[in-house]
Amino acid sequence: MIQRSKRIGIVAPGRAIDRSVAAKVTALGRETFGADRLELVFHPQCFQQAGHFAGPDALRADALVETANDPEIDAVWFARGGYGSCRLLDIAIHRLGPTARRKTYLGYSDTGSLLASLYKDRIGTVAHGPMPSDISRPEGELAVHRALDFLLRGAESDVLEPTTSASGHFAAFNITVLANLIGTPWVPDLTGHVLMLEDVGEYHYSLDRMLFNITSSLEMRGLAGLRLGRCDPIPENDIAFGSTASEIAAHWCERNAIPYLGRADIGHDVHNKIVVFGTRNPSS
Amino acid sequence: MIQRSKRIGIVAPGRAIDRSVAAKVTALGRETFGADRLELVFHPQCFQQAGHFAGPDALRADALVETANDPEIDAVWFARGGYGSCRLLDIAIHRLGPTARRKTYLGYSDTGSLLASLYKDRIGTVAHGPMPSDISRPEGELAVHRALDFLLRGAESDVLEPTTSASGHFAAFNITVLANLIGTPWVPDLTGHVLMLEDVGEYHYSLDRMLFNITSSLEMRGLAGLRLGRCDPIPENDIAFGSTASEIAAHWCERNAIPYLGRADIGHDVHNKIVVFGTRNPSS
Repeated sequence: MIQRSKRIGIVAPGRAIDRSVAAKVTALGRETFGADRLELVFHPQCFQQAGHFAGPDALRADALVETANDPEIDAVWFARGGYGSCRLLDIAIHRLGPTARRKTYLGYSDTGSLLASLYKDRIGTVAHGPMPSDISRPEGELAVHRALDFLLRGAESDVLEPTTSASGHFAAFNITVLANLIGTPWVPDLTGHVLMLEDVGEYHYSLDRMLFNITSSLEMRGLAGLRLGRCDPIPENDIAFGSTASEIAAHWCERNAIPYLGRADIGHDVHNKIVVFGTRNPSS
Repeated sequence: MIQRSKRIGIVAPGRAIDRSVAAKVTALGRETFGADRLELVFHPQCFQQAGHFAGPDALRADALVETANDPEIDAVWFARGGYGSCRLLDIAIHRLGPTARRKTYLGYSDTGSLLASLYKDRIGTVAHGPMPSDISRPEGELAVHRALDFLLRGAESDVLEPTTSASGHFAAFNITVLANLIGTPWVPDLTGHVLMLEDVGEYHYSLDRMLFNITSSLEMRGLAGLRLGRCDPIPENDIAFGSTASEIAAHWCERNAIPYLGRADIGHDVHNKIVVFGTRNPSS
């Protein structure tokens, strides 16, 4: 029996992608892995538009639910961030059935809202990493190739954030997205986890305020540690903040008795490595 | 016996103010109310600088505690927002003694972190309204005059946000500041309160995300209603959001079963009216 190709379903829970993005990512997948191993199924919803979003909330939720519940689809890949995922939490997650629980979900940035909720409900394998929209970055093929490699080969591949090769529990989020989830019903229990955080385009004072929020929150009291990914570019304010992003993270960790473990190899760039949520290497 | 003048102590829990701000506000106070009725005591800490902040955290906390606990000071007025108040929560509030409980505290924007914590601990009369730094706005005298009038005459004056003249419980915050407090130990119980929110310079998608956070949070489940103050200016994004700020607030309120009550007369401008936290007109 010939094994069928792996089918990756792509939906856009936040902003839309352009058809050229789908074409480029499809071409890269075919050239690198071959059509017999990999099939990318871009849901038509990815190209819809309703104001800021890739279609109305109900349409985006339906596309996610349909793709996640489809037995012919092996993994769900989020097309792009850009804001909108949090609007699907109360209308999509509870509709995911048993089939959805066997899949891998990959995305980052705004789609962290979905990663959080999926992980909270222990639905599938949840991973933080590159999206199709990353193809538009200079050398974006690096990021997309990494994501496809992971989706095809799973956590066996060498595309993972290096510190997650140690034994432990891991999770990764965009700082703004996690700060705006804190206090809502969709925050997973991260007790004993190493939390990795990254952001893009936020002022130092804004990073400081959000790291205050996250590290001071009752929900993050049990973290095993925190690592800071890249936060570049950080805009210049009219006054120099006086601490680097890393110093800010270390400050808030110390103030809240969370071990600060240094940097993580994640961020809004093509070097963004993959963080699989939950237990890694439990036996080592 | 001649009644002594009312002494207002001014501290800067976030960013520093310029000495010219203190001079202008002092002159306005003297001209309008007379030195025999009003004395403004700018703590030297207001003019300190340590990176982004008006002095290190410990210095800002000490100035606040000293002023709040000083029996010769009748009210505490926050000089300016600009970020930094949340860094004082765990090092200042627990040091406020019985004298501090008899005072009025006035500020808005970033200083909302302190208003929240003071109100949570039922320390003094907490009010959301103009600060000395507002003198730098065009027609800033309007805002500063309103604040001084309130500090001198209290809630009897006609400077209050008009809808707070109805019976009820009220509170007011900057959206970004409240969103970043949610989940921390410093959020007051706002059950039964009308919550008024304002912001400045945030994109529509950012307002949407923060209003998702606030209205979806377990801590805001018991609100009697929500009113939206002004959020101008809202920057233009590369894509039109598709809803106004008011529509965004109404959307999230409906989605979380919080009555949306319309607009509030507060904001980052000279028309910013005063909202006294807690019960107003309990007998009417």
